[in-house]
Amino acid sequence: MSVGAGSPAPRRRGRPSRTDATTGPDARTRILEAARTDFAERGYDKTSIRGIAKTAGVDAALVHHYFGTKDEVFAAAIELSFEPALVIPDILGSSTEGLGERLAGYFIGVWENPVSRAPLLAVMRSAMTHEAAAKVLRVFVLRRLLGRIADQLDVPDATFRAELAASHMVGIAVLRYVIQAEPLASAPPEKIIAMVAPTLQRYLTDPSPSGD
Amino acid sequence: MSVGAGSPAPRRRGRPSRTDATTGPDARTRILEAARTDFAERGYDKTSIRGIAKTAGVDAALVHHYFGTKDEVFAAAIELSFEPALVIPDILGSSTEGLGERLAGYFIGVWENPVSRAPLLAVMRSAMTHEAAAKVLRVFVLRRLLGRIADQLDVPDATFRAELAASHMVGIAVLRYVIQAEPLASAPPEKIIAMVAPTLQRYLTDPSPSGD
Repeated sequence: MSVGAGSPAPRRRGRPSRTDATTGPDARTRILEAARTDFAERGYDKTSIRGIAKTAGVDAALVHHYFGTKDEVFAAAIELSFEPALVIPDILGSSTEGLGERLAGYFIGVWENPVSRAPLLAVMRSAMTHEAAAKVLRVFVLRRLLGRIADQLDVPDATFRAELAASHMVGIAVLRYVIQAEPLASAPPEKIIAMVAPTLQRYLTDPSPSGD
Repeated sequence: MSVGAGSPAPRRRGRPSRTDATTGPDARTRILEAARTDFAERGYDKTSIRGIAKTAGVDAALVHHYFGTKDEVFAAAIELSFEPALVIPDILGSSTEGLGERLAGYFIGVWENPVSRAPLLAVMRSAMTHEAAAKVLRVFVLRRLLGRIADQLDVPDATFRAELAASHMVGIAVLRYVIQAEPLASAPPEKIIAMVAPTLQRYLTDPSPSGD
C-alpha cells in the first residue's frame, strides 16, 4: 500500500521484484488482466481489490489509484473482454448488406473462442446473481455497446433494435454454453449463424420490422 | 400450514396440526409449492430437502418418498412453474398462422406476471451458477418443452428451431428483467411482441428460414 508513482521499490526478503511492475502502463495492464482472471475464476462476490492486487503483484493502493472502486475495476475488466465495442464499426462497415451475418458471425466467434468465452460467462453469471455486477454490465457495457451500434443504424428505435439483437445472442449463449441444451449445444456455428443472420438483419435494417 | 382436505384439524399446543397434511395428494402439492418457494427465495444451493419439508410442514422422509433427490424435487418444482409445457398445444392450435405472435405473447405474459416470473428467474439464476440445476433444466424441462413444440411443427430441424426461438425469449428475459438494460427494460410488452413475433414465426414455420 506504499508505492508512490515513479519510486522504485527495493527488493525485500525473497519476494519477486516489483521494481518496474508496480507503476506505469505496464502495471495498469497487468491489473486489468489480473482483475479479468480473478472475476472469471472466483466470480464477482469473491473477488476483492486486495486479491486483484495480489494476482497482479502490485499494491492494492495502486489498483485504487488506477480504477477506483471494485465496481470500476470490474467494468474495466469487462470492457477488456468486450472488445466488440471497438470492433463494431468494422462489422457495420460501409453497407448494411450482410450486416446480420457479419454480426452473428462475430458474436458466435467471440463465444466459440474459449479465451473470450470464459470471462464473458463469468460476467453473465455475476450479473445474474449480483445487482452490483448487473449494474456494471447495464451502465458501463451495454449502454456503450448498444449506443455504438445504434449510432450507425438508420432506422427508428435503433437502440431498442440493437438490444433485441443483443438479447438473441445472449440467449443463444445461455442455452448453448451454460445450460448446454441440445441440439443447440452441438450445432455447428455456421448453422446457427445462417439461421440468426436474417433475424439480426431484420432488426437492424428493416424500416418496419414488425410488419414482416 | 395445517388444513387437510375437508377435515377440520384439531388445534394442538399452538403448533399447526400435521394429521392430514403429512400424506396424500394434498401433502404432495404443498411440498411442491414449498419447494418452489424455497428455491425461488434461497436459490438452488441453499435449499435442502429438510428445509422444504419444514416449509411444507411435513417430515423430510415424505419429501424423499414423493420426489426422491433434491434434484428431482427441483425438477418437479420447475415444471410447476413452467406450466407452458401444458399450454403449448393451445398456442400451436390448428394453424401455424399467427403462431409467432401467440408464442411471443404467451412467453412475455408469463414473464410479465410477477407470480410466474419470480420462480423462473430463480431457476435461471440457479442454472447459471450450478451445474446440477443446469442439468435439471436441460434434461427435465427444456427437452420436454422443446420436444412438445417440435412435435407439432412441420419443418426440418424442428427441435433446433424451437430451441432458437426459446433462446430469444430467454435472452429477452435476461436483459429485460435481470440486467434491466434500457430501452428493453421499459419497453411496452406489445412492442416487444410485435418485433419478436415475425422472428419466431420464421424459425417455427419457414421451410428455409436461413434463406430470407
